[in-house]
Amino acid sequence: MKRVYAFNEGNASMKDLLGGKGANLAEMTRLDFPVPQGFTISTKACLEYLENDKQLLEELKNEINQAVSAMEETTNKKFNDPNDLLLVSVRSGAKFSMPGMMDTILNLGLNDENVEKLAKLTNDERFAYDCYRRLLQMFGNVVYEIKMDKFEKILNDTKNKNHIHYDSELSADLLKQIVLDYQKVYEEELGHPFPQDVYEQIYAAVEAVFSSWNNQRAIVYRKLNNIPDDLGTAVNIQEMVFGNKGDDCGTGVLFTRNPANGENKLYGEYLTNAQGEDVVAGIRTPVSITRLQEQFPEIYEQILDLTDRLEKHYGDIQDVEFTIEQSKLYILQTRNGKRTAQAAVKVAVDLVHEGILSPKEALMTINPESLHTLLHPAFDPKAVDNSPVISKLGLPASPGAATGQIVFDADTAKSWADEGKEVILVRHETSPEDIVGMNSATAIVTSQGGMTSHAAVVARGMGKCCVAGCSELEINEEKKQLQYPGGTLKEGDIISVDGTSGCLYLGEIPTIAGGANENFDQIMDWAREYATLAIRMNAETANDIENGLRFGAVGIGLVRTEHMFFQEDRLIAIRRFLLAKDKELRANILEKIKEYQTEDFTHIFELMQDKPVVVRLLDAPLHEFLPHAENEIANVAKVLEIDAESLVDRIHAMQEINPMMGHRGCRMGMTYPELYLTQAEAILRSAIKFAKQGISVKPEIMIPLVSNQSELKFLKEEIKAQLDQVLEEEKITVDYSIGVMIETPRACLIADQLANDAAFFSFGTNDLTQLTFGYSRDDAGKFLNQYLETGVLKDDPFQTIDTDAVAELVETATNKGREIDNQLKIGVCGELGGDPRSIQHFHKFGLSYVSCSPYRVPVAQLAAAQATISNL
Amino acid sequence: MKRVYAFNEGNASMKDLLGGKGANLAEMTRLDFPVPQGFTISTKACLEYLENDKQLLEELKNEINQAVSAMEETTNKKFNDPNDLLLVSVRSGAKFSMPGMMDTILNLGLNDENVEKLAKLTNDERFAYDCYRRLLQMFGNVVYEIKMDKFEKILNDTKNKNHIHYDSELSADLLKQIVLDYQKVYEEELGHPFPQDVYEQIYAAVEAVFSSWNNQRAIVYRKLNNIPDDLGTAVNIQEMVFGNKGDDCGTGVLFTRNPANGENKLYGEYLTNAQGEDVVAGIRTPVSITRLQEQFPEIYEQILDLTDRLEKHYGDIQDVEFTIEQSKLYILQTRNGKRTAQAAVKVAVDLVHEGILSPKEALMTINPESLHTLLHPAFDPKAVDNSPVISKLGLPASPGAATGQIVFDADTAKSWADEGKEVILVRHETSPEDIVGMNSATAIVTSQGGMTSHAAVVARGMGKCCVAGCSELEINEEKKQLQYPGGTLKEGDIISVDGTSGCLYLGEIPTIAGGANENFDQIMDWAREYATLAIRMNAETANDIENGLRFGAVGIGLVRTEHMFFQEDRLIAIRRFLLAKDKELRANILEKIKEYQTEDFTHIFELMQDKPVVVRLLDAPLHEFLPHAENEIANVAKVLEIDAESLVDRIHAMQEINPMMGHRGCRMGMTYPELYLTQAEAILRSAIKFAKQGISVKPEIMIPLVSNQSELKFLKEEIKAQLDQVLEEEKITVDYSIGVMIETPRACLIADQLANDAAFFSFGTNDLTQLTFGYSRDDAGKFLNQYLETGVLKDDPFQTIDTDAVAELVETATNKGREIDNQLKIGVCGELGGDPRSIQHFHKFGLSYVSCSPYRVPVAQLAAAQATISNL
Repeated sequence: MKRVYAFNEGNASMKDLLGGKGANLAEMTRLDFPVPQGFTISTKACLEYLENDKQLLEELKNEINQAVSAMEETTNKKFNDPNDLLLVSVRSGAKFSMPGMMDTILNLGLNDENVEKLAKLTNDERFAYDCYRRLLQMFGNVVYEIKMDKFEKILNDTKNKNHIHYDSELSADLLKQIVLDYQKVYEEELGHPFPQDVYEQIYAAVEAVFSSWNNQRAIVYRKLNNIPDDLGTAVNIQEMVFGNKGDDCGTGVLFTRNPANGENKLYGEYLTNAQGEDVVAGIRTPVSITRLQEQFPEIYEQILDLTDRLEKHYGDIQDVEFTIEQSKLYILQTRNGKRTAQAAVKVAVDLVHEGILSPKEALMTINPESLHTLLHPAFDPKAVDNSPVISKLGLPASPGAATGQIVFDADTAKSWADEGKEVILVRHETSPEDIVGMNSATAIVTSQGGMTSHAAVVARGMGKCCVAGCSELEINEEKKQLQYPGGTLKEGDIISVDGTSGCLYLGEIPTIAGGANENFDQIMDWAREYATLAIRMNAETANDIENGLRFGAVGIGLVRTEHMFFQEDRLIAIRRFLLAKDKELRANILEKIKEYQTEDFTHIFELMQDKPVVVRLLDAPLHEFLPHAENEIANVAKVLEIDAESLVDRIHAMQEINPMMGHRGCRMGMTYPELYLTQAEAILRSAIKFAKQGISVKPEIMIPLVSNQSELKFLKEEIKAQLDQVLEEEKITVDYSIGVMIETPRACLIADQLANDAAFFSFGTNDLTQLTFGYSRDDAGKFLNQYLETGVLKDDPFQTIDTDAVAELVETATNKGREIDNQLKIGVCGELGGDPRSIQHFHKFGLSYVSCSPYRVPVAQLAAAQATISNL
Repeated sequence: MKRVYAFNEGNASMKDLLGGKGANLAEMTRLDFPVPQGFTISTKACLEYLENDKQLLEELKNEINQAVSAMEETTNKKFNDPNDLLLVSVRSGAKFSMPGMMDTILNLGLNDENVEKLAKLTNDERFAYDCYRRLLQMFGNVVYEIKMDKFEKILNDTKNKNHIHYDSELSADLLKQIVLDYQKVYEEELGHPFPQDVYEQIYAAVEAVFSSWNNQRAIVYRKLNNIPDDLGTAVNIQEMVFGNKGDDCGTGVLFTRNPANGENKLYGEYLTNAQGEDVVAGIRTPVSITRLQEQFPEIYEQILDLTDRLEKHYGDIQDVEFTIEQSKLYILQTRNGKRTAQAAVKVAVDLVHEGILSPKEALMTINPESLHTLLHPAFDPKAVDNSPVISKLGLPASPGAATGQIVFDADTAKSWADEGKEVILVRHETSPEDIVGMNSATAIVTSQGGMTSHAAVVARGMGKCCVAGCSELEINEEKKQLQYPGGTLKEGDIISVDGTSGCLYLGEIPTIAGGANENFDQIMDWAREYATLAIRMNAETANDIENGLRFGAVGIGLVRTEHMFFQEDRLIAIRRFLLAKDKELRANILEKIKEYQTEDFTHIFELMQDKPVVVRLLDAPLHEFLPHAENEIANVAKVLEIDAESLVDRIHAMQEINPMMGHRGCRMGMTYPELYLTQAEAILRSAIKFAKQGISVKPEIMIPLVSNQSELKFLKEEIKAQLDQVLEEEKITVDYSIGVMIETPRACLIADQLANDAAFFSFGTNDLTQLTFGYSRDDAGKFLNQYLETGVLKDDPFQTIDTDAVAELVETATNKGREIDNQLKIGVCGELGGDPRSIQHFHKFGLSYVSCSPYRVPVAQLAAAQATISNL
């Protein structure tokens, strides 16, 4: 097993082995980019280390030593060599980019002797000691887990004592003292000094990077981003170049296009006389990349040229780290750039128009899940005009608009959000420790840091609204309050955050639906062109239906008729029905219900016209329609003119121990067929109205919770007989069909039997998941979170399909159904119908469509297209 | 397609096509038995008729006509022929014997002219008109559904008017008048006369038999006896012979051995000068078959010879109908005799000893389900001596002992039983209309009819205690009371019925466990010898365990530990645990619980010694241990010294919407691992006590409700670590293992994953069935009965395995488990483990054992042997 690869031994396709960063460094080396030389220790070596009780194998040490020798030859530098001193950086690099999650150490190779050699070599004592103190600080923190505060305090105390504002103003002598003080911290905290042996430094750094794969924040990030735990991370060891050697030096981060809006213009920041950490950490506020043109015009040209080549080479927007060492440019890293959904859409379309990508390739560059952020509501502009401004000085770090209560720490953010509150996390600057809280917040606000600060990068990745670096805010995290020019806010106060403009407002601002633009439309057009799966929506209100149509839904996959009964007059009608004592009365009420329902379906068909509409017949347990609170019972008894006691008796008789598995769905249809017949007739009579105008509406009547063939057969035949009689009376035809909702494990296993009677299948993935696991979704909270946190479950099976069992049942049912009818229309109307990862499976099984909530239609559409493209 | 078969065209193997009766008539014809000649219309013709909108096809009519012609040739008789008049009977005959269910018509071929010819031919006008009036009566009732009362009233009025007691005393003239009156009934009821054309009579009778396949009582019988609905019935048309031609005539029914106790002696009854219906209907009380020896000694000898041959030929006890016509014996029918479990066991053993059957064949003659009647308790003899007697004159028609409230009609029997009452159905005599009520009753008592009456035959078939023909009882079904020599009883009064002795007692009598005898032991020995499946019991009390061991259980398949917590002191302990606020307190309570449980398991191992014992760790939802009624809450709060309000809060917090799918089983084990560890340690510490005495008890620790691999892996590793530490401390070994209960569909589908960690599987068929169907067993009553009655479900899936889906999941899991570990021990501990039909499937899937309640162990044992034998 080969564990170590020199940069010139790899290429971009080796991400599994070399990690994303290592593969890209190898690729750039291959392309003759100005990359500092080095080597990569593979992810396999990491896994080997973790499995080997965290012991660094001798074999690995040997390979590292050999690679160092080779590097010494290529660079013409040597460890400890007073004439050509080699220093290196050690950086983690997993397969998937995990910003801020893994750790970096710079300037390895320095020790008490080498720092003097460096001073002589560079003729810059200040620079040499600054490098050393950075190494001591990073190494101590990363390798030995010494708190960063310990070092920061020494640094700040020294600055304060000497009335110094910027680190760069520290003199060599002061830095020497700092180095001595830092070394004391080692003795105090660890009982042993900083290791002077360079190889010992490297081994320890490699072990630290390897171990950091399993640190808490890495685990959380992976969970949030669905990255498997068993990949491991690579380690990149690279010759140091210095952005902090003087004013002809600098370091920066740039995107080849604007990651917020996709504009095709270099976008980024840099700092002169600084090392990389200074930019990302947001400690000094960097300047815009455009300023580089004035300061280093030649380098700017070189960057323009290199980034253009990089973008063409990778076919995607690039996120590049660079360093200028004494007017020479080095590219330290490139990777596909994280971006907002808006930018992703624009960049994808632009790259196609620029001839860099084909539409198929462009579709693959967009994360479907991110699209819904595009559709999120923005603030109503009129309301914004009347809202008191907190600040307009923030950076628009991640677009969107959100209102919520402010909190000042991640834990409170999480716990308030868990209580159902909308919270806005306000921090000086965020750090990886805040990830969970950021994920819980609806928006993030910081007073420090730029567009590439931790808060900004992470928020964009999460698709969360973020305003960064709003320096007008004086935040007191301890007192949980903030001061702004106009006043003071404390924990729990409501503010509104506009991540698109960077503005903050007092109080709540109403929102309007998020707008899609022509780029979005273009992406959706391409997605529709490539997707095999059709996308429908789950909807019954006019508002939802209009949204879904706007987003391109080609039909309705689920009308939930029980929702229609919760309006007051309807609720009274259904209650009267349930409590009626004689047949005649019952028949009268059904007439009334038929009128209501005919009205409901007419509204739906009016909007849907000739697009197919699946209507699910009543599914809810009937007792849900009955009152339960004491005063409510009295009221209802009064309205229905019956005595409260017999109402209570009836309610008790209808109560169930496990209502989810009780008398509902088609089981209720079997005991009250007249209810189903009434609904079916209402559907048909609505359809007839349009048929008479020559509009062929397509109702698809769905029978829920079937678990055996006779239920379906009986109800289908009863309904068909009734509807065909109506059609005969009306002398008209309607293209209706009767199908079945597949939501019990048994329905999956007898799908061949069901296919004999069903015109279509639609999977109800919620109930199917509940029954397959035996988890009541209403109750699973008691253990499901724990299961997710401890990894008993990798994913929440109600959010993404369980591939081991539920997916297998879906596949079995699909195959069995298609054995009987190879044209059988099969859809998904459960919540998983809008989940991109689940859609991959539904595509693979050959389903006809998925149905989801209107705002998820574009997500599903793109996911469906990607599923098709990646299986072409 | 051939629809009609002459008796000499068939044989005993053709039951599917000719029905049981037809195949046996053909077989007896083949063996040259004295069988009246005729032919059989096949079951296929019946299905064809039912599918063809109940239209008799011309093809069938032609085949019937041809068969009649052939019959006329064989018998030398002809329809309408004044010299050799042919009369026929028409009888139904399905594949499975369905006593009293289907209809018979005798004397077809008579009409207004032929009755005179018959009178002349036989020189017996009285006989001829008696035959004609019987035909009119049966034909009217069976074919035209004219109520039997209409005819009975005319008959009884005539008898009363003429002071006649027995039908046989009616003169020819009176019978002529009765025939005229009967014919008026036809005109009044139908508006048309009795059909004079003989072929028309036959066609109509055939149609009536065909249609009767789907009459209500036939459907109910089939459902109760698990006979498929799609078999159809054959029709047998046979030359009439007459047991009512005079005193040298007679008719009877006999069993080749005593069907109540198995004694090897002819057993039966006959009536002189009577037709068959008179015996079975219990209208006249017949005399014992032994009397035949005096009355017709030659015929008695002939019968002894024939029945001996029949028994040897069929290898089973035979139920034979015969007729003596003018001193000539005819065998009308033979079939395997229904018998009590006691008789079945004795006959099976005797037939082996007599060299007629091999043990394997003998095992196949016993209905496993019937065995549990053998084990039912009998009355405590001492208590019987002190109980007031109602009557000792009843016939011991079906053994057993039962106490209950008397009711006088089948509907009340059903509705009271549905309310959970034990009822005893008391009737003059039962009829097929009473089947449902009989099934609901715990015992049946009649005042009329013999050992072969409807009540007796059906009760034995059902394995229900029955006392028949208790003539001392004067029953008033209308007033719902009965008089007996010592007093009056009314509906709801409690009596005790001893079906083994035929005695009735006032009030309740305590029972003692039913005794098995040496024949039973012999059968069980053979069954164990042949069965591949081992039989365990579900038990945790000493009483249950002792019973199960007595019945041959080879281990315990399920100890339900939650049952152990419902004793008061234990309940308090578990409540304290659930409500404890600090860890220390909790640990103390667990120590107490460990003591309790150690005691529990010690008792169990003491009884089981080195037999394997599966202990299921706590499975019930924890809130089941908390109080729910208001006063109970107050009490508990007092005992636990906490305030009621916080107790209520805790109870609310633990309440679940669907507890069946909630926080229970291993999910609770995951949140409170200390509870499972405590239980596991208690199991081990009990085992260690025996290990120290050199007894190797075999605890099998079962983790319930697993639905993913991590649950099992985590809990298994935690438990194993703890137990191995204890073993190390104690320096001893115990042969314990840790396995998994398979009861969610997902567990079945990931059984290969589970097999990596599980030492054994045990299927929990109740939960598996609930989840596969999505039926909450607690709530399914709202629709399940309707589903069974209307045939939506063929069987209750909680009583016999659902072959379409649940069985498939069991098979899948078994195969997946065995792929990983081909020696994996796999059992069933759900209720279906004791169901003979389900056991057939479990055998086929290759399971290791089934486990059931102790009283069902012999049932399961025999079913397991039969499964093996029938698959040899």
